[in-house]
Amino acid sequence: MIHDMLAEHPRATPDRTKSLAGTISAALECVAVCSTCADACVSEGDASLERCIRLNLDCADVSGTAARALARVGSSPANPLVQGIVEICRQACLACADECDRHAARMKHCEIAARVCRQCADACDQLESVRPLMTH
Amino acid sequence: MIHDMLAEHPRATPDRTKSLAGTISAALECVAVCSTCADACVSEGDASLERCIRLNLDCADVSGTAARALARVGSSPANPLVQGIVEICRQACLACADECDRHAARMKHCEIAARVCRQCADACDQLESVRPLMTH
Amino acid sequence: MIHDMLAEHPRATPDRTKSLAGTISAALECVAVCSTCADACVSEGDASLERCIRLNLDCADVSGTAARALARVGSSPANPLVQGIVEICRQACLACADECDRHAARMKHCEIAARVCRQCADACDQLESVRPLMTH
Amino acid sequence: MIHDMLAEHPRATPDRTKSLAGTISAALECVAVCSTCADACVSEGDASLERCIRLNLDCADVSGTAARALARVGSSPANPLVQGIVEICRQACLACADECDRHAARMKHCEIAARVCRQCADACDQLESVRPLMTH
Repeated sequence: MIHDMLAEHPRATPDRTKSLAGTISAALECVAVCSTCADACVSEGDASLERCIRLNLDCADVSGTAARALARVGSSPANPLVQGIVEICRQACLACADECDRHAARMKHCEIAARVCRQCADACDQLESVRPLMTH
Repeated sequence: MIHDMLAEHPRATPDRTKSLAGTISAALECVAVCSTCADACVSEGDASLERCIRLNLDCADVSGTAARALARVGSSPANPLVQGIVEICRQACLACADECDRHAARMKHCEIAARVCRQCADACDQLESVRPLMTH
Repeated sequence: MIHDMLAEHPRATPDRTKSLAGTISAALECVAVCSTCADACVSEGDASLERCIRLNLDCADVSGTAARALARVGSSPANPLVQGIVEICRQACLACADECDRHAARMKHCEIAARVCRQCADACDQLESVRPLMTH
Repeated sequence: MIHDMLAEHPRATPDRTKSLAGTISAALECVAVCSTCADACVSEGDASLERCIRLNLDCADVSGTAARALARVGSSPANPLVQGIVEICRQACLACADECDRHAARMKHCEIAARVCRQCADACDQLESVRPLMTH
């Protein structure tokens, strides 16, 4: 539905719609998965997860903001501010994935969060790699 | 992945995990679709869409908050605050869907937003209907 | 500045502007203070704070959504959806304040969060008590 | 209260608390003021404000995320991810201020939003200029 919606935007640029929808979906999956991972880490009661909780919360916030900025980009992510937001989302996802990986062997929720974060980082990367001329 | 994640939470209640994951997904789809619908309405340049824009933005915010609250509910939404948040999400989705329906014949993006909002309202409704004993 | 801004809205209702600005400010203070209290609780490494962390995060999210909904209410919070959002914000603040109070003797950050939450609950209460006729 | 709260964090670094609290407050003021400016622009019914609405919404989201990331930074914003978030907040505020300035002569709400955005950009700038060694 996210893809169909973007295609109906009066300023839609059809060749970008698919990758845009994919990145929005990946970022929203991060919002949910990182929020749950932070909460699960809190429930573990393990002091070594302090940094992991903080990064999961940062990543959930940044991914949510990226999803929303992309959702209103008029189907063209080619404006420098949105590109900067996508880039910081990629960095937040990688930082969170690296930290989650350190706990992944012991905690399955960290393993899943790391995987979802890397998928979102890849989607951001792909979106950035096609930087078209700025039209916004 | 949202479902797998919830299942790994140390406080997971397996019989609730599926409906919880479904509601979180539906709410996050609202975040994206309502954000895009608001933006598309702005691009239409049609003064009769003022209320639709406002309701889409309210619905995106409330749905995002509901998704996050459910993501950290320890797999059991059985606490009164989260139930209240789910209920206000249901109301925001219905209000937004009703307004979008008024423009759906002319604008496909409003038609899609109305449909996605009603799916989320249904998911909230279903989640509320199973209110288990409070354990939080 | 929040007050001055609301007064410049083309749909401003001057007699509501002051209480509206006060509630928005109180809710935004909750966003910051509850986010910090959750983070400070995580740093304490005390398992008895699990519920406090969750409620602080819920309260931060709900208060942020309430502030934003009120910021775009056209200076009149007299629509039923926004009233429902303000009411759930009041409930989130009271639930968070009650939990923080349980730890306030030992942890100053919980004492401060409880106070800020009650101020926001009071502001929501006052805003609701003046429910004007619906104009939205 | 935001300042007092940060000072009670178990990982507080007292010499940073004041500038941190100032930046959080400035960013939260942006959340409210940009949300209202977007809504006021929608009510104006003026097609030339399309880009202004979008930038106000982007700026409100990014500022909210920056405020929350700073609120849980343990009183030291000296980690590269948070510095990146602060930098993108500065850029969002400047982009929004530049666009609002174009309409400021005709619309007082745009003039106010531009001023609040520049104050937040300055606060971000100041916070970045003191980059201490990384301790996070």
